[in-house]
Amino acid sequence: MTSKGSPMRVAMIGYGFMGAAHSQGWRVAPRFFDLPAFPELSLIVGRNGEAVAAAGEKWGWNESATDWRSAIERDDIDIIDIVTPGDSHAEIAIAALEAGKHVICEKPLATDSADAERLVARADERGLVGTVPFVYRYHPMVREARARVARGELGALLSLSGAYLQDWLLSDADDDWRVDSASGGPSRAFADIGSHLCDLIEFVSGDRIVRLAAVTRTVYRERAEHRDIATEDIAGVVVQTAAGAIGTLLVSQLAPGRKNRLTFELSGSDASVAFDQENPELLWLGRRDGSGLLLRDPAALAPDAARISTLPAGHPMGYQDAFNAFVADSYALVRGEHPEGVPLFADGLRAVRLTEAVLASAASGAWIEVAA
Amino acid sequence: MTSKGSPMRVAMIGYGFMGAAHSQGWRVAPRFFDLPAFPELSLIVGRNGEAVAAAGEKWGWNESATDWRSAIERDDIDIIDIVTPGDSHAEIAIAALEAGKHVICEKPLATDSADAERLVARADERGLVGTVPFVYRYHPMVREARARVARGELGALLSLSGAYLQDWLLSDADDDWRVDSASGGPSRAFADIGSHLCDLIEFVSGDRIVRLAAVTRTVYRERAEHRDIATEDIAGVVVQTAAGAIGTLLVSQLAPGRKNRLTFELSGSDASVAFDQENPELLWLGRRDGSGLLLRDPAALAPDAARISTLPAGHPMGYQDAFNAFVADSYALVRGEHPEGVPLFADGLRAVRLTEAVLASAASGAWIEVAA
Amino acid sequence: MTSKGSPMRVAMIGYGFMGAAHSQGWRVAPRFFDLPAFPELSLIVGRNGEAVAAAGEKWGWNESATDWRSAIERDDIDIIDIVTPGDSHAEIAIAALEAGKHVICEKPLATDSADAERLVARADERGLVGTVPFVYRYHPMVREARARVARGELGALLSLSGAYLQDWLLSDADDDWRVDSASGGPSRAFADIGSHLCDLIEFVSGDRIVRLAAVTRTVYRERAEHRDIATEDIAGVVVQTAAGAIGTLLVSQLAPGRKNRLTFELSGSDASVAFDQENPELLWLGRRDGSGLLLRDPAALAPDAARISTLPAGHPMGYQDAFNAFVADSYALVRGEHPEGVPLFADGLRAVRLTEAVLASAASGAWIEVAA
Amino acid sequence: MTSKGSPMRVAMIGYGFMGAAHSQGWRVAPRFFDLPAFPELSLIVGRNGEAVAAAGEKWGWNESATDWRSAIERDDIDIIDIVTPGDSHAEIAIAALEAGKHVICEKPLATDSADAERLVARADERGLVGTVPFVYRYHPMVREARARVARGELGALLSLSGAYLQDWLLSDADDDWRVDSASGGPSRAFADIGSHLCDLIEFVSGDRIVRLAAVTRTVYRERAEHRDIATEDIAGVVVQTAAGAIGTLLVSQLAPGRKNRLTFELSGSDASVAFDQENPELLWLGRRDGSGLLLRDPAALAPDAARISTLPAGHPMGYQDAFNAFVADSYALVRGEHPEGVPLFADGLRAVRLTEAVLASAASGAWIEVAA
Repeated sequence: MTSKGSPMRVAMIGYGFMGAAHSQGWRVAPRFFDLPAFPELSLIVGRNGEAVAAAGEKWGWNESATDWRSAIERDDIDIIDIVTPGDSHAEIAIAALEAGKHVICEKPLATDSADAERLVARADERGLVGTVPFVYRYHPMVREARARVARGELGALLSLSGAYLQDWLLSDADDDWRVDSASGGPSRAFADIGSHLCDLIEFVSGDRIVRLAAVTRTVYRERAEHRDIATEDIAGVVVQTAAGAIGTLLVSQLAPGRKNRLTFELSGSDASVAFDQENPELLWLGRRDGSGLLLRDPAALAPDAARISTLPAGHPMGYQDAFNAFVADSYALVRGEHPEGVPLFADGLRAVRLTEAVLASAASGAWIEVAA
Repeated sequence: MTSKGSPMRVAMIGYGFMGAAHSQGWRVAPRFFDLPAFPELSLIVGRNGEAVAAAGEKWGWNESATDWRSAIERDDIDIIDIVTPGDSHAEIAIAALEAGKHVICEKPLATDSADAERLVARADERGLVGTVPFVYRYHPMVREARARVARGELGALLSLSGAYLQDWLLSDADDDWRVDSASGGPSRAFADIGSHLCDLIEFVSGDRIVRLAAVTRTVYRERAEHRDIATEDIAGVVVQTAAGAIGTLLVSQLAPGRKNRLTFELSGSDASVAFDQENPELLWLGRRDGSGLLLRDPAALAPDAARISTLPAGHPMGYQDAFNAFVADSYALVRGEHPEGVPLFADGLRAVRLTEAVLASAASGAWIEVAA
Repeated sequence: MTSKGSPMRVAMIGYGFMGAAHSQGWRVAPRFFDLPAFPELSLIVGRNGEAVAAAGEKWGWNESATDWRSAIERDDIDIIDIVTPGDSHAEIAIAALEAGKHVICEKPLATDSADAERLVARADERGLVGTVPFVYRYHPMVREARARVARGELGALLSLSGAYLQDWLLSDADDDWRVDSASGGPSRAFADIGSHLCDLIEFVSGDRIVRLAAVTRTVYRERAEHRDIATEDIAGVVVQTAAGAIGTLLVSQLAPGRKNRLTFELSGSDASVAFDQENPELLWLGRRDGSGLLLRDPAALAPDAARISTLPAGHPMGYQDAFNAFVADSYALVRGEHPEGVPLFADGLRAVRLTEAVLASAASGAWIEVAA
Repeated sequence: MTSKGSPMRVAMIGYGFMGAAHSQGWRVAPRFFDLPAFPELSLIVGRNGEAVAAAGEKWGWNESATDWRSAIERDDIDIIDIVTPGDSHAEIAIAALEAGKHVICEKPLATDSADAERLVARADERGLVGTVPFVYRYHPMVREARARVARGELGALLSLSGAYLQDWLLSDADDDWRVDSASGGPSRAFADIGSHLCDLIEFVSGDRIVRLAAVTRTVYRERAEHRDIATEDIAGVVVQTAAGAIGTLLVSQLAPGRKNRLTFELSGSDASVAFDQENPELLWLGRRDGSGLLLRDPAALAPDAARISTLPAGHPMGYQDAFNAFVADSYALVRGEHPEGVPLFADGLRAVRLTEAVLASAASGAWIEVAA
């Protein structure tokens, strides 16, 4: 296996909640998928030297450092994995690409589309890999839904609905850096979770949202640490796709009892699919003459769904399993393999464009064409 | 019980699918609710004399007739129940009110708001009862949701989502009088089922949709018996309410595997409720610190929910039970009682106005204010 | 329709909770099924003259009376419907058969198998109809399950599990005549609800329980009105069938949160079915290579399931709908029709025998053969 | 963290399917729980030198070897993790304990209780840790259920039901070493999965099964590679507990459509809990006056459930997460910590005793007391 080359060396910039998921991904995924050589967890970088050293020791990184710029300059690093707050993504990512590194960058890829476009262009010019952890793509039943759409089982897409509901910002006592436009960008709920929802819907359907009308709401203008909050808590959107389907999206971070409820349903002229991220082992398949509720079963799945199905049927796979598969695919891509459906910088740019369209429509009250 | 007066006499105009549900309602409901006197099933009216006589005999109507105008003129009829196709509703209802009869009229109450307004005004002037079978109001768990909202459990309404999905018109081989604007009015999917969805959301929330932006789609311009079809198969809507909540509605009659999937979720600042008409014995109650899935249990329900809960917990109530309760309440109203939450002509008018707003927005691409 | 003969006249003995369900059944079902002539609700009988008169007026019975014996003697009565407490069933039923009446008798048909056998024999000799309201047979999805078994879809039956859980007797403050052996017979939980469970499993599977080992428990020896209670609150049973399948049954009236949770799952060599009475519109169909969750849809059901499916897909049918269908079928049988799957006195006897086997095994600690 | 001591060195004997789960556990868990020092993946042992070397390289073990006896003798190994077929467990485990190693041993701990007793005694005498991967204990909602029972929320346990259904041996073309008594021991379905079910029920309830009556069935006496198969495919059991509760257990490896369906429901005098391993993020909590369906939410869980809840609410945890937590706890125990609820050799012995009681009852047709 290692005959295909020596391990590549990873540096992770940032070490918050997502840092644990990424570290576990790096640590595990390459070894439980069929990968060419293993990555090395070389360096973890954060501003607080003591804290980042502790995180690094805990999660198994070889070294720690406090200056991301010099980390990027090091010759013995091949891949930069960015898990910092949103406003720093573009700057770090651009610098990493300039330094010739492959990049994995948490979403939002950038807080405006100009930056995101530059990132896509730079990665292309340099022939470097840039991926974005739209990890919900890595639930096997999402892949199964996509495979069924791709082989025509749904017929023409007619309508769609999606929702992404959470409640962690329900009260004005709840706070986070994301509520502040200065650190998180002009959009919050849509940029943070609506982006996942759109990515999933477009990924599965193979269709594109081309026009939309949106309304947003900021329920709390003040929270514990923030004043004059302008980012939205909730967004409602009605959309049209390239194929002519119409549908609705609802995104909220103030929906009591919903923790991470990402659901979508696609209705075609022949069949429908519906998925709920909180119960990801199931896929509803709707047909006029009898519907199915499929439990993930590697033996019965499409190849791309079976490929990332590392546990037998009835042994639930969850969020970390999806994350691991994303890291494995990112690494495979860096190694020159071409796994299906890896979320790339272009997908991160797409999310920024959709977010901008939502904000523009909410501000103007008009339908907005989404830039292609 | 009959001491409160003599039975009132009902004539039903029309005898299609809904005729069976209405007949069973008249036959049963008054006897299984606590009602003042029982209605008499006096007369059933339809154009085909033989067919209407057979239906009347089967369903237990005393007489049958073929001319609705003379039926309305009869002195021995107190209540007219209209179950004909949509384009005749307003004409028959107006005539019935003019003749001093109470009226139950299937939706749409009228195919435009001017007619619907006239009906509301005429019933008011004459002091006559006019009700519209928005029967989904009569699921006990819908009443339970409403009671919880009314007593403040949800806090301020922040967002909502609703969908009403069917598949009986999925293929272009499927046809119905409703697809034709001439007989069903300018809107189809929204007038037919979207109206139920909006009624339910406004009924439960106590809030009102004040602005909306919509998109509609007519997938098949030709069906078995119809050409140049202009009525919509699907509608997607984004809404704002008087209280400032925002949300989305999706309505489709071409959603494979969904038979009569009317669902809604209301998220407040303190709690959420969600309901699914296809599983009406349950109500999801969402709270940040633990959610419940309540099974209908008369002993634990709000009074207005227990009132229409004619079976003990665990003995499923369904569509016909809801229908029966609607008929019982309509009759109680005619008898001078004041049961809670009966859907009136004003609610039928409301549905027409919302439908007109949807069509206007879909045509213009602009947000539309919904007439109060 | 009435050409097939004149209506038959029904007398109902008893007027408790089940009386309402029976009355609604008599009132409605014959008119919403395709029946030869309609029944007449002639007479309702109860010990308290005033109360029975009120019930009769409310539910629509023509007359009321207080003496069941003279009611049975009347020439103008064709059918006796018995809804009294359990210890009087056999006596009334035998008398009714002697008087040449058809009989519908609530379960338990009798409190011992000798009485039940006599009832079966007497009905046979006289050529009279005797039915027992095992009404859960009348959920369309139960019929669908049965039809699939009958046409071999499940293959050979290998295992089964069933449970019937309620909580209405959870506390020792809860009481009922059934807890008293003197009025309800020696078994309570099993006779009352275990009998339904076994009937359903044998009805759907077409197989028979031939041996069983049981354990029972009486949690409360004293309740509000009763002392020295000997009837069981809970029963656990392990069974073998004629076809060699093995399985388990659990019955409890002290299961917090379960109201009327009758569930069963049958696993065959090729496929499985599972049903939950509290959600009766669904049937789970398990296959190794992909399982289905079927929503009742008349267009896709087996003929015997479609036959009793009086509402379109997505319009939930419930307990009363099942009850109505049972009454319609009982009446059809009396009229000389031969509808499929009507629960007969022989089925009531079967339930008594299974109940006796459970008690015998619980008492002796041994496996018991169930009398054929 | 490492201040608490140097890493301990692990050797894993065997490298089949469970080897991947164990390896991932060793690789990850210690780093994502709060553990004293990290384990070292020192040695992997298997009979086929080339294959075990490949597995070792893939999963990240430092060395590989082919002779388990010499592996056990090595001074630089502290922990032996046994994932070989069942008939070799006891021999290897005894040898490992003799050599002074801590042991993690896949179930069945032994194929008879005499061996299992010796293992428990030897670990005790030597003061060594012995754990058995009853990993379903490590779903947070199982811990939550247990904590609720422990703090008295359920009241006295009255009844229980459990099932463990799979379909991977459905056809006689399906085969496995477990079907052969010589390699897997006299029991198969019950030893393999019934043991998990009983462990979970006893773990959550804190109660003990003291008597049982069982029936077993071997559907296929011949499979692809085996003749005269005597191990059971299916077992049905009725049980009594020390606290007097009664209940049923069904175990089958021939249940079409059920992949790994481990479910249980415990009913107490005050409340009930129900759990389904295929949807492990939910716990049903039944109360007479309203039931809940709790989604795992670390913020709302009992401490022992929150402790192993490594992902926020709404981010599904699955089988591997449970496995990782088991490995982390086993390691913590070896390091001298005392985490709650670790499945020990005594629990493995318990499973063997219950299995023996099931076989004895099935053979004799009598109720059997389970050895304490």
